[in-house]
Amino acid sequence: MPKRGATLRFATSNKHKVEEARRLLGVALEPVDVSTDEIQAATLEEIVHAKLERARASVDGPLLVEDVALGLDALGGFPGPYIRWLLESAGGAGLATIASALRDRSARARCALAYWDGSVVSLFVGETPGEILLEPRGTAGFGWDAWFLPRGASATYAEMSSDDKDRISHRGRAFELLRRELGDRV
Amino acid sequence: MPKRGATLRFATSNKHKVEEARRLLGVALEPVDVSTDEIQAATLEEIVHAKLERARASVDGPLLVEDVALGLDALGGFPGPYIRWLLESAGGAGLATIASALRDRSARARCALAYWDGSVVSLFVGETPGEILLEPRGTAGFGWDAWFLPRGASATYAEMSSDDKDRISHRGRAFELLRRELGDRV
Repeated sequence: MPKRGATLRFATSNKHKVEEARRLLGVALEPVDVSTDEIQAATLEEIVHAKLERARASVDGPLLVEDVALGLDALGGFPGPYIRWLLESAGGAGLATIASALRDRSARARCALAYWDGSVVSLFVGETPGEILLEPRGTAGFGWDAWFLPRGASATYAEMSSDDKDRISHRGRAFELLRRELGDRV
Repeated sequence: MPKRGATLRFATSNKHKVEEARRLLGVALEPVDVSTDEIQAATLEEIVHAKLERARASVDGPLLVEDVALGLDALGGFPGPYIRWLLESAGGAGLATIASALRDRSARARCALAYWDGSVVSLFVGETPGEILLEPRGTAGFGWDAWFLPRGASATYAEMSSDDKDRISHRGRAFELLRRELGDRV
């Protein structure tokens, strides 16, 4: 329990929130700007790096972590890394609903791999442009595969063979970069 | 650099991704399920707790952290805590665009406060239901205040006086709970 009169620190960098908090609590509040942003990292690269650091704490030896972002160009790349939570909240149909509000349904699928070989961390990113469909097509794959038509393709990820998907997918491209790096080391 | 033949561990709990990774790398991969989810915590409560733990590492004494979620009912509560990234990516207009695809634009604004008094952590959550407007109204406030019409109110947060907003807002309600807890302790 704080001593009466102890300064209460408020961890935020938002001055509007500081102002509201002072008004609402009616006590002296000292804003402190501490970096808590890793909790909700903004970019796929930051997230996959943070995941690797977290995973390394409990796993020995060569380690690979992966994360994916799917962003709509018309929404400035949103939901991006948060596509996972959109799927959990509203499914592929929720993604299509959001896309249905946009004239331009262009999207970008990105896969980031962070690889720890025991001494250094390497990052590989694969990207595939395409568009979000309003109706799903195909039954292969997983996640949003049936809703994503890669640019220049006539089939969604979920309508392709594994080989065809691997050749053009965001994940296939990221793993290709990793594979080259590994060479015959693994 | 790993020894030739060393096992590469892949930190994921998604069996589809394990399958693709094995295919793509052509090497033995051992999936390991390590908890990296705190990086992208699912709920507002988890995020604010994680933020507090992070902030406590660098700040002494009584400490308060805050986070906000704004979720559309028709999207299962998305974007929720990720509203911040939607605003950064596409602004309030992006929120309205998403809402425009929904017949039901009901939304829920939530504010979570995690408070460390020097010996224990307390969590307080304030919630305000309402709806997302297709056009902004008002100039006060910040963030998405002009796009949120609280249920039963005729004015958006951005059209209200500070006093009126504090009485019904998600943040006002969370701070009211904290204020009661603090009593005259601070």
